[in-house]
Amino acid sequence: MRKSIATVSVSGTLTEKLAAIAAAGFDGVEIFENDLLVCPLPPEDIRAMAADLGLTIDLYQPFRDFEALPPPMLAAGLERAEHKFRLMERLGADLLLVCSNVSPLAVGDDALAAAHLRLLAERAAEHGVRIAYEALAWGRHVNEYLHAWRLVQMADHPNLGTCLDSFHILSRGSDPIGIEAIPGEKIFFLQLSDAPLLAMDVLQWSRHHRCFPGQGNFDVAGLVRHALNAGYAGPLSLEIFNDHFRQAGTGRIATDGMRSLVAVERELAGAAHPCVPTGFAFTELAATGELREVLGALGFARTGSHPSKPVELWWQGGARLLLNDTGGDAALIAIGLDSPDPGGAVKHAESLLSPVLPRERAPEEVPLDAVAAPDGTEIFFCDTAWLGDFGPGAPVPGQITGVDHVALTQPPHYFDEAALFYRSVLGLRPQESLELPDPYGLLRSKAMSTGSGVRMVLNIAQVGAGQTPWQHVALACTDLLAIARELRAAHPELLLPIPGNYYDDLEARHEVSPELRELGVLYDRDEHGEFLHLYTVTVGRVFFELVQRVGGYQGYGAGNAPIRLAVQHAGQPMMGG
Amino acid sequence: MRKSIATVSVSGTLTEKLAAIAAAGFDGVEIFENDLLVCPLPPEDIRAMAADLGLTIDLYQPFRDFEALPPPMLAAGLERAEHKFRLMERLGADLLLVCSNVSPLAVGDDALAAAHLRLLAERAAEHGVRIAYEALAWGRHVNEYLHAWRLVQMADHPNLGTCLDSFHILSRGSDPIGIEAIPGEKIFFLQLSDAPLLAMDVLQWSRHHRCFPGQGNFDVAGLVRHALNAGYAGPLSLEIFNDHFRQAGTGRIATDGMRSLVAVERELAGAAHPCVPTGFAFTELAATGELREVLGALGFARTGSHPSKPVELWWQGGARLLLNDTGGDAALIAIGLDSPDPGGAVKHAESLLSPVLPRERAPEEVPLDAVAAPDGTEIFFCDTAWLGDFGPGAPVPGQITGVDHVALTQPPHYFDEAALFYRSVLGLRPQESLELPDPYGLLRSKAMSTGSGVRMVLNIAQVGAGQTPWQHVALACTDLLAIARELRAAHPELLLPIPGNYYDDLEARHEVSPELRELGVLYDRDEHGEFLHLYTVTVGRVFFELVQRVGGYQGYGAGNAPIRLAVQHAGQPMMGG
Repeated sequence: MRKSIATVSVSGTLTEKLAAIAAAGFDGVEIFENDLLVCPLPPEDIRAMAADLGLTIDLYQPFRDFEALPPPMLAAGLERAEHKFRLMERLGADLLLVCSNVSPLAVGDDALAAAHLRLLAERAAEHGVRIAYEALAWGRHVNEYLHAWRLVQMADHPNLGTCLDSFHILSRGSDPIGIEAIPGEKIFFLQLSDAPLLAMDVLQWSRHHRCFPGQGNFDVAGLVRHALNAGYAGPLSLEIFNDHFRQAGTGRIATDGMRSLVAVERELAGAAHPCVPTGFAFTELAATGELREVLGALGFARTGSHPSKPVELWWQGGARLLLNDTGGDAALIAIGLDSPDPGGAVKHAESLLSPVLPRERAPEEVPLDAVAAPDGTEIFFCDTAWLGDFGPGAPVPGQITGVDHVALTQPPHYFDEAALFYRSVLGLRPQESLELPDPYGLLRSKAMSTGSGVRMVLNIAQVGAGQTPWQHVALACTDLLAIARELRAAHPELLLPIPGNYYDDLEARHEVSPELRELGVLYDRDEHGEFLHLYTVTVGRVFFELVQRVGGYQGYGAGNAPIRLAVQHAGQPMMGG
Repeated sequence: MRKSIATVSVSGTLTEKLAAIAAAGFDGVEIFENDLLVCPLPPEDIRAMAADLGLTIDLYQPFRDFEALPPPMLAAGLERAEHKFRLMERLGADLLLVCSNVSPLAVGDDALAAAHLRLLAERAAEHGVRIAYEALAWGRHVNEYLHAWRLVQMADHPNLGTCLDSFHILSRGSDPIGIEAIPGEKIFFLQLSDAPLLAMDVLQWSRHHRCFPGQGNFDVAGLVRHALNAGYAGPLSLEIFNDHFRQAGTGRIATDGMRSLVAVERELAGAAHPCVPTGFAFTELAATGELREVLGALGFARTGSHPSKPVELWWQGGARLLLNDTGGDAALIAIGLDSPDPGGAVKHAESLLSPVLPRERAPEEVPLDAVAAPDGTEIFFCDTAWLGDFGPGAPVPGQITGVDHVALTQPPHYFDEAALFYRSVLGLRPQESLELPDPYGLLRSKAMSTGSGVRMVLNIAQVGAGQTPWQHVALACTDLLAIARELRAAHPELLLPIPGNYYDDLEARHEVSPELRELGVLYDRDEHGEFLHLYTVTVGRVFFELVQRVGGYQGYGAGNAPIRLAVQHAGQPMMGG
């Protein structure tokens, strides 16, 4: 299917937008009027630039507050439209989006509205222009897509059809099945956006919080399916108003939009994710002496070394860490995922526009392909062969059973991109999404999981506190209190100190062992089970969490995160300075 | 009246918060539980620290989801409360805020709720604790303040009273007059916050967008008056949840909170602003050669010099500019306001905690006192004597009649502080507040005015685009087209180029003279009249606008600002580099 995007969806000047949209592989654009008005180039030059870039101009938008005004105002509206038709001729655009009237002067009279729309379509026809009439979710009288379609039917002009917009339909909770009642050729245009479910005024929701399909909570692909069933054959066009997209990189957001449409197409084709990862093969850390000290205290030890790179395998139980002497600060730099089909996983990632990373290796080594996650972390797809590079070592015995989850701080403005990456490229599904206070702002946190095996937590400084790009690896164990006792006895300086006030509150809420307080272990419970966890101090950008899930506990102890954040911000004793 | 503030209202650790709150002059604090939980100090130390700082702990909060749960859950709730009572004894707090239950398990049974509250009060009494019961605006069954009061009456225990919160009352549109029906001694606590009017879920509105009294749209002082009429004698206590306050300077926000309460007290005392400025005496600019060139082109010329400082007076018609050779980039550094009582204005500003700036001057010079505005601009209060410093010069003839308005970019997170400063310290009233797109974000813009004489526009990069702290001086004239013709002929390079596409759109909307397009003049109209304006290029941080108001036009041409912003961002020919 052809793919298009409204220029308002990305940042920059109109020429920057068009270049980035073309580079991302779109077939066409909607020209958003304000982008044109502020552009120093005349319409003819924009037309030529789009043509040079291989972009069709699929829509000019929006034309507002026209239909069903008191009849004396009709002439002025038609005159205004004539100006736009002439402009569109210069621009080489033949489809105009007309939004349902929001003016308090508009009259709630379907016959009048339809008559006006017919007049408009007649005038448009003289210029070779067609009109796509859309119900805004906050239209004064027309705010349901089937109402807009009814008016189009009443007006009955070949140059008049309807425009469907997933936000305007789904934000109102309307059932999109009614789309199938509209003849496909009368659906002149289809605009797609997703959004998180927010309880707020729909106009503000629309203007600030739309996002690409797959980044929010709407079933956008399901809506597209109805349009295809109706016979719609036009482009899928993204139209996003989003505060983060406005200030993010133009090319990066355009590419992410394309990724979202490819994912919609895959979903429409009924394609299951070809190779959902089944577990963490390894996590790779830029290592320092201090990091080795913490890992040693946690019972890890070197069990192998890479033949040609300064990389060691530290393996305990089911948890494998690669320590890479990069010379830099301690940081999490790569994640290896157990994949049922590593080659297929890379192809899948590539089809979703994920950059496949060049990989240097000696000929005798095991090939490993990686893609870059939005925060720069390298994601490897592995079968078990990679372990061969590190020799015949076996895991050291210990109480760590594996990696429970990995938490990564996302770069500003790219949280939605990250959510879409982990969902579409890796096959993780969104779990809880939370807002957590720290002393200088609010953290947004979103958990994603395959359901078994791979859990990720994406964090971002939503309000303030942007200077703390912490990453952490949560290690699973079956007897956290035993480990905590050993650590507390041997290496108390490596554990994050937890305020006594936390335990006063915890004991007011739950009956818990006094040992939690003595050991600095945090506690949570849900309706499925219990969660015990503790944190190490931070080394470079990294800290470790030890977690024990009891029963079927589903969460991540997020309610305790503000405690951790406050202690971390207050500056716990950092190793090595 | 005693003044208090909840620790959640400012950023930082609990110890940072307490120090800043004391330094701002508050008498007491509400300890917000999460601030205590994340604090490494035990309650006894926090108590001692507050005492050392001269702060009373007026309230501990919040205790949630207690009343009207199914009876089997009562014992657990009372047990939880016992923990909190013991904590409060350690903390030295004797008043506990209990919020109306939001749990889906809560029962809509007033008798049950009252019985539970009575039990709680009985237990509290054993610890010397009193209970202040508050209706949250989103409480499951109790969400109106008079409903909470009814339950307090039913429970009928001396240790049980009600807490009133202006947000919870006014956000629901409840009439605060009912407060006067509550005996003052049963109003155990009064929490104050303001908020802008937003159409959104009240919980999200409350958690992110509260602000200090005078910064939003609520009549907070009116509500306080009802409480005083009822006989309330406790503290006025600020409780703010605000995304900007969370990341702003702790001391600065605490001081701003104190300013807001002083302003509330003034309003309660019926004190009119003692000396609202009547006009712009001067605007002072850090000058460069390029700036002089622009001003010369606009018809200004030097008419005097300061005897001891490198400051010149450039005076045309009713507009006086001071050019100060600071050696730095061109910038607006001070504003002189015509004041009916300069000494009184400074005293008033000082009473509102505005920093009075030290002023060095020679003994023979005219004394001029200034305060610092939130963005660092110096605000001088003037009678006409200051002109004497610049000798006997008279204005050069010209078409500029005065300063129409001054627009200043506010520092991040301090927009609300600026609004309160201009309102309370200078006596300006808020006008329109708008959100304007630029190519890389959204600008928030708020106009304020005395109604005549002094108009200010406060701008802030709300989304992205934070690196453009532009300032501008809008000069009034009576024949803008005449000036534009001269400028276009003699200095076309000094005028901001306006895209032709803007005029295509303007001509579609209004019948305007084609001369606007030729001259690069922008146009707006409202129901009162018309507005013609044009912009110069930017020099340093400053540009100039020429404006002509026709009829009773009230606005600032804000609809055209996105055009200006796009051209400015695209990089118009900057003078001198």
